[in-house]
Amino acid sequence: MNVLIVHAHPEPQSFCSAMVSRMRDRFESQGHSVTVSDLYAKQFNPVASAADFQDRNNPDYLVYALEQRHAQKNNTLPADIAEELALLNQCDLLILNFPLYWFSLPAILKGWIDRVFLSGVVYGGRNFYDRGLMKGKRAWLTFTLGGREHMFGDDAIHGDLDTMLRPVLRGSLGYAGFDVLKPFAAYHVPYISQEARVEMMEQLDAAVDGLAERELLPYPSLDNFDPQMNPLK
Amino acid sequence: MNVLIVHAHPEPQSFCSAMVSRMRDRFESQGHSVTVSDLYAKQFNPVASAADFQDRNNPDYLVYALEQRHAQKNNTLPADIAEELALLNQCDLLILNFPLYWFSLPAILKGWIDRVFLSGVVYGGRNFYDRGLMKGKRAWLTFTLGGREHMFGDDAIHGDLDTMLRPVLRGSLGYAGFDVLKPFAAYHVPYISQEARVEMMEQLDAAVDGLAERELLPYPSLDNFDPQMNPLK
Repeated sequence: MNVLIVHAHPEPQSFCSAMVSRMRDRFESQGHSVTVSDLYAKQFNPVASAADFQDRNNPDYLVYALEQRHAQKNNTLPADIAEELALLNQCDLLILNFPLYWFSLPAILKGWIDRVFLSGVVYGGRNFYDRGLMKGKRAWLTFTLGGREHMFGDDAIHGDLDTMLRPVLRGSLGYAGFDVLKPFAAYHVPYISQEARVEMMEQLDAAVDGLAERELLPYPSLDNFDPQMNPLK
Repeated sequence: MNVLIVHAHPEPQSFCSAMVSRMRDRFESQGHSVTVSDLYAKQFNPVASAADFQDRNNPDYLVYALEQRHAQKNNTLPADIAEELALLNQCDLLILNFPLYWFSLPAILKGWIDRVFLSGVVYGGRNFYDRGLMKGKRAWLTFTLGGREHMFGDDAIHGDLDTMLRPVLRGSLGYAGFDVLKPFAAYHVPYISQEARVEMMEQLDAAVDGLAERELLPYPSLDNFDPQMNPLK
C-alpha cells in the first residue's frame, strides 16, 4: 500500500509533527510505502489564482476549474500542483495531518485541496461522492486540537466533531470519492502530561494497526438521486 | 454603522466581485461607511507561520496563539495582520464574500481568519461563543456556489447548507462572539442567465435592506456550561 501523509504544522517539534514520524514508522514496519508531503517545509503556495495558469484557455476571464482542466490536458500545470497531484494519484491511503485551526484545516492545507483536487481528475460533472474519481482510495484525518473530548458530542458545547468537520470529511474527501475513515483526534494536546502523550502515540499505533477494520463515515450514493440530483423515491 | 467586506475572489469581473460593489453602494446609500479588504488584490499571505513573529516570546518552540498574544502586547504584529485587525476592530458588521471552494472558504480567506482572529483580542480563555470578544458585532456570509438550491436540505444530496458551513458559521464567527446572520447564498451562479443574475442582485439589495430583521443563527451560551464546559443540568 502507498500511503501519502500531507502534513501542515508550522512547528517541526510539535506533537502533530511527531505523529507523522510515528505513523511512517508503523506503516513501514508493516511493509507499506510512505511518502510525506510537508507543506510548511515546502513553503507550499495555498492560493488558487490566475498565477497558476501561464497558458490560459480564456485569458480574459478566470474560471479556476476550467483552467485546471485546460492545463491538465495541455500538460501546463505548475510544477508544485503537478507534483502533489502525482503523489495523490499514486496513493492508496491519503492522510491529512494537521492542528485544527478554527475547527477546520490550516489555510496552507485548505489550499492544497483547492489547488490539487483537480477538476476532471479528482471530481467533475456527476463524478462525485460514490462516483468521485478517487474511488478505491481511502482518506484519514489525524489531527491535534486544544479542546477536550467532552466538549464534542450532541449535547456538548461544540456539538458533534464529525459534523464540525463536515466540509472536509464529506464535502471534500467524500465528495472526491474516497472511503473516509473515522478521524483520529488527539485532544487537548497543548495541555497534557508526557505520560498522556506517550499513551496517545500508542493509541495512534493501534489505530494504524486497525485501519482495515476502522469505521467508515457514511455518505450519499448517487444511485439514490436522479440526474438533476433530486432524491429518488 | 461601519461595514467591513472581506472579499476573496481571484477574478475581478466575477459575479462574486460584483456583489461587493452592489453591497457597498447599497450600504452607502443608507448612510453607512463601507471598507473593502480585497485579499487577492492585496496578495494577502494566508499562512500562519513563524515568519509572522520577528520578536518571539519563545524562539525555540512555536505556539502560534501565544506568539500572537506576545506580539500584540509588544506591538510587533506584522503590518498586514495589524492592518486587518484594525479594520476588524472598527467594524460593526463583518461580511465575508467569496466563492465556495470545497464547501468552505478559499484558502486565502481561511488564512485571514487563522492570522487575524487573534488570541486575546478576538477570543481567548473562556471568552468564546456568547462571551467571545467580538460580541456586539454582526457577521454575514455572502457567497457564490455552483450547486443549486435543491441540492441542500435535510434529504438533499449535500445535506443542510448551514451544517456544511458550520466551522465558519459556528466554529469561527459564532465562537468569536459575533451575532451570525443567516448567509446569503448565490446558487448556481456560473450557469444562470443574465436575467437570473439581475434578479439575484435585487435579492441581495433586499437582503441588505432587511439586515436588521434577518434571522440570526443560534449558538450555545456559556451560561449553560460549567467552567470545564460540561453541560449544566
